[in-house]
Amino acid sequence: MLFLQDIYHIIGMEQDTSYMLLKSLDTPEDLRRLEADKLPEVCKELRQKIIDELSRNPGHFGSSLGVVELTVALHYVFNTPYDRIVWDVGHQAYGHKILTGRRDTFCTNRKLHGLCPFPSPHESEYDTFTCGHASNSISAALGMAVAAKKNGENNRHVVAVIGDGSMSGGLAFEGLNNASSTPNNLLIILNDNNMAIDRSVGGMKQYLLNLQMSEGYNKIRYKLSKMFYKWGILNEERRKSLIRFNNSLKSMLVQQQNVFEGMNIRYFGPIDGHDVNNLARVLKEIKDMQGPKLLHIHTTKGKGFGPAEKAATIWHAPGIFDKETGERIVIDTDGLPPLFQDVFGNTLLELAQQNDKIVGVTPAMPSGCSMNILMKAMPDRGFDVGIAEGHAVTFSGGMAKDGLIPFCNIYSSFMQRAYDNVIHDVAIQKLNVVLCLDRAGIVGEDGPTHHGAFDLAYMRPIPNLTVASPYDEHELRNLMYTAQLPDKGPFVIRYPRGRGVLVDWKSSFEEIQIGKGRKLKDGKDMAVITIGPIGNTARKAITRAEAESKMSIAHYDLRFLKPLDEEMLHEIGKNFCRIVTIEDGVLKGGMGSAILEFMADNRYTPTVRRIGLPDKFVEHGPVKDLHRLCGMDEEGIYKVLVSF
Amino acid sequence: MLFLQDIYHIIGMEQDTSYMLLKSLDTPEDLRRLEADKLPEVCKELRQKIIDELSRNPGHFGSSLGVVELTVALHYVFNTPYDRIVWDVGHQAYGHKILTGRRDTFCTNRKLHGLCPFPSPHESEYDTFTCGHASNSISAALGMAVAAKKNGENNRHVVAVIGDGSMSGGLAFEGLNNASSTPNNLLIILNDNNMAIDRSVGGMKQYLLNLQMSEGYNKIRYKLSKMFYKWGILNEERRKSLIRFNNSLKSMLVQQQNVFEGMNIRYFGPIDGHDVNNLARVLKEIKDMQGPKLLHIHTTKGKGFGPAEKAATIWHAPGIFDKETGERIVIDTDGLPPLFQDVFGNTLLELAQQNDKIVGVTPAMPSGCSMNILMKAMPDRGFDVGIAEGHAVTFSGGMAKDGLIPFCNIYSSFMQRAYDNVIHDVAIQKLNVVLCLDRAGIVGEDGPTHHGAFDLAYMRPIPNLTVASPYDEHELRNLMYTAQLPDKGPFVIRYPRGRGVLVDWKSSFEEIQIGKGRKLKDGKDMAVITIGPIGNTARKAITRAEAESKMSIAHYDLRFLKPLDEEMLHEIGKNFCRIVTIEDGVLKGGMGSAILEFMADNRYTPTVRRIGLPDKFVEHGPVKDLHRLCGMDEEGIYKVLVSF
Repeated sequence: MLFLQDIYHIIGMEQDTSYMLLKSLDTPEDLRRLEADKLPEVCKELRQKIIDELSRNPGHFGSSLGVVELTVALHYVFNTPYDRIVWDVGHQAYGHKILTGRRDTFCTNRKLHGLCPFPSPHESEYDTFTCGHASNSISAALGMAVAAKKNGENNRHVVAVIGDGSMSGGLAFEGLNNASSTPNNLLIILNDNNMAIDRSVGGMKQYLLNLQMSEGYNKIRYKLSKMFYKWGILNEERRKSLIRFNNSLKSMLVQQQNVFEGMNIRYFGPIDGHDVNNLARVLKEIKDMQGPKLLHIHTTKGKGFGPAEKAATIWHAPGIFDKETGERIVIDTDGLPPLFQDVFGNTLLELAQQNDKIVGVTPAMPSGCSMNILMKAMPDRGFDVGIAEGHAVTFSGGMAKDGLIPFCNIYSSFMQRAYDNVIHDVAIQKLNVVLCLDRAGIVGEDGPTHHGAFDLAYMRPIPNLTVASPYDEHELRNLMYTAQLPDKGPFVIRYPRGRGVLVDWKSSFEEIQIGKGRKLKDGKDMAVITIGPIGNTARKAITRAEAESKMSIAHYDLRFLKPLDEEMLHEIGKNFCRIVTIEDGVLKGGMGSAILEFMADNRYTPTVRRIGLPDKFVEHGPVKDLHRLCGMDEEGIYKVLVSF
Repeated sequence: MLFLQDIYHIIGMEQDTSYMLLKSLDTPEDLRRLEADKLPEVCKELRQKIIDELSRNPGHFGSSLGVVELTVALHYVFNTPYDRIVWDVGHQAYGHKILTGRRDTFCTNRKLHGLCPFPSPHESEYDTFTCGHASNSISAALGMAVAAKKNGENNRHVVAVIGDGSMSGGLAFEGLNNASSTPNNLLIILNDNNMAIDRSVGGMKQYLLNLQMSEGYNKIRYKLSKMFYKWGILNEERRKSLIRFNNSLKSMLVQQQNVFEGMNIRYFGPIDGHDVNNLARVLKEIKDMQGPKLLHIHTTKGKGFGPAEKAATIWHAPGIFDKETGERIVIDTDGLPPLFQDVFGNTLLELAQQNDKIVGVTPAMPSGCSMNILMKAMPDRGFDVGIAEGHAVTFSGGMAKDGLIPFCNIYSSFMQRAYDNVIHDVAIQKLNVVLCLDRAGIVGEDGPTHHGAFDLAYMRPIPNLTVASPYDEHELRNLMYTAQLPDKGPFVIRYPRGRGVLVDWKSSFEEIQIGKGRKLKDGKDMAVITIGPIGNTARKAITRAEAESKMSIAHYDLRFLKPLDEEMLHEIGKNFCRIVTIEDGVLKGGMGSAILEFMADNRYTPTVRRIGLPDKFVEHGPVKDLHRLCGMDEEGIYKVLVSF
């Protein structure tokens, strides 16, 4: 059968004539004017649009393909933006963007000054809430549902769309637990694709599987009750028993068949999430029912694109690819320095092979932080706890209390989720947990929700912590080695997304003295203090500044934000009137602030210039562009040095 | 019947001869040597000991009385300290302390340098984990259970004891969700007293109630299956149906009767938690079963002390009381300034009466933060979301997104639980949520887990926030009034535990300009900058220092940590070489640090002395003693002023 698209392809008009339907849909209002029988074609075009765009402009892929039908059905049935759709983790929302006025700008997705990586209320009235971090949708949507009631907006529908992976987060449970506690008509859509970024884990997953199985049992139950009628068991004693039995059965099934019903949330499903007409029909049926309700749908991540259906983790964010062959266009990385995450992953395995007390803990990011290297080689030594940062840290605390040495790896911005756990469950007890903060500093295209901007500032006030950041891969290895030596207490190591600076990154392990920085370069006129890999950028700026200004600039790698190297800082305080501090983190309360405190407390009076992230949420875009905008690239640092 | 105790009482030997059994129990080892029939008497004495001690040395009362039998049974059955008992929220652990070598020092409980308010691993090897904040026990215990397996300690039992209130916390759910994901023999005891500090709320509570009801249905199920046998339904067709039916029933009951079983955690109970012999018997029966398991027990908070059984909230921490009459010895507060929390509570109601967009949100602390004043007067305007700080903030964010103005009140140290929610769900979107941080600064006897030490430091780096602290009650009222005016964005107000300084605290509302501090007093030689009520202490120290040293000292109330009052700080920077900053919070990254940053950024070079909390976890004791130890009382401040 020849499709219209094929014809256009043959006559060379592909670019202009694809998306025949989609082109006519400027807003969801246009979608809602279509007959229902057009919806499958809308889905087809929307899916193709996502494939086309993502093949040349990389982004999150599999999740958005999985919810194409859901997205179309939601905007078809609900009166958006008056009705509120709250996406949980926005990387599934590309279809939503395309349908809500951003079809023609979608090619700028994730680019500097382009469309935001995740739905953002600053960008569109259809984007109801920030959704970079998982599991917040139910709580936020419940707030909106309650507000609708309070504001007398009784016709407003509020829908939260949450994946099964996000359901493992405690915040989602807290939201569920409160969903029935106040009058509201919240609809929760549980998008069950049996797969978080890596894989969803834990009891809830098992629980959802059981729910699916129970379909069969429900059928048996109905058959059985028909049987009873057929058999005509009607004597008085039996009749009473039957009534009691039916009550019991009803109670078990209605109140206790699943936890959602048990929590007074009406449960519907599971249904096929790729049958758009049926989805729309069911949504229409349940949308005006009073009280909180949950619709459980099954979808396939990467649906409609063969390779992505088969390898969901790889196709979560695959980079650019050939949309015809399905081949990922992998950039040749031979000769490039390794990713910091791979240095972490390989080093963790090496250390675990040497020290049988070491275990790894990750909240749903084994491939993102490369802990999968350990998990593959030593499956019983790595724990993927699902999206559950708080548990990851407290669980690590429990293991450390009884003698293990957990390396708990959490992206810097997600560690915000476990702040109290670090203070209360690790630091107070001085437990030897190694907290590895990947994606520290500017992360690039994932934008403000994902920048690891705050960790230096929020970790610094916590007593008993060691807080360090490596200048390069060798330093990362040595810090990891040091952290697992006896009696080191809680130990934070933060390092950025992306590549290091050393091609030859494998080195033998060397202990680093806690709280000991190092002088990278002598100088007389000015001292530059850096922490972490941004020191490499600073080094180049220093070289250039010295060459062009005849200044002599000393460079110190602080290495430890905590404890401070007081000996080194005294040396700096005594010898320099001008100090520049450079960090890939917020200025307020960060490393530069620590230097100011030291100098003030010790009555040094240098002039200090601090370079770092400003007091605003930094946008998205390539790391180098964002560093430039924040004055943290070589040029920016150079300018400060020569103008000081 | 005359008891031994009565005889002693008659012959006037009460003091020496009470606790006949308890006196012989120096360690749990001694307890385990007793015959089981002695356990009720141990419980009786232990309960009496708690009542006696608490009647004269105030502390948490109801919770510990509720778990007397559980405590005795646990230490009787388990080989503590080799076996691990992890208490969730340690205010229930007084009995545990008394049985584990601290009977004779229990009179020092909560006093300066005395026993810690909550179990502390620093104090006793029987105290396995920090337990000041709720909901962490399952995660920590799971860590220990996994460590036991890894370390080959196969006979070690690990028990988490968690209340139904704590079960509403997301962290507990994350722990449960992971409890079955790795081989372990964890035992979770769900201590269901249908009552958190105020009351447990939400779906999980309903769920647990249903579980209890299901006892009856279970009985019916067994009766029914007996009936089937009696009726002899044996033809072939019926036999097949029955097998299918039984499978279905089994599946529903075993896998899906409750969420715990659904998550592969074996469920036992509910049983009476006050029958110590039965408890011990059940614990013995299940302790060696493989895999994670949960025992659901019912207890009564305040058990065995009439008034406490009747009014659990009041008797949660009742202060001292007459143990014979049950009368609480209420200190006469006439003529004293009000509690800050009551100023908050009354002011919130006043504002809510004027502005119908205002709502209140509290995570399980309506009486602790006095939001119960609003909830009583306007029940539909206050939300107690249970122990769920993250949800409290994100739910507030959702309501703010759709036009309500939530006042979300969370104790400072508990706000650490919601750090990401503040950043991700409120600040990025600039939502008008008013975050009221009660118990900021040193809180006293609750100690290191409860001091609100970090909030100024961890809130300061977050963009878009306004962060303020009132000097007195009028300022608190005006800040609250200001925060609910249009377009104020996210607004943090932090204030301490305890009483204010103004007896006449009611004042008419006045808007405060955001980011505007005030000069309280002129001076020439030195500038003192304070934030919050500690400014009142500083004022006294200044008066004394001026009188004794002839110095002239200016005093500025910064009021807003963020945004800074740049005009005022320029005035200070221009006019003073000596600045003293004073705050009831950690020095690292706090207000003083903000002043240093401002001065450095603007090239002022004053000498700055910072007074605040040191870089260690501050112990427990009366606030005034702890302030003295930290150099933050009048004397400490005075000394800095005159020696500067």
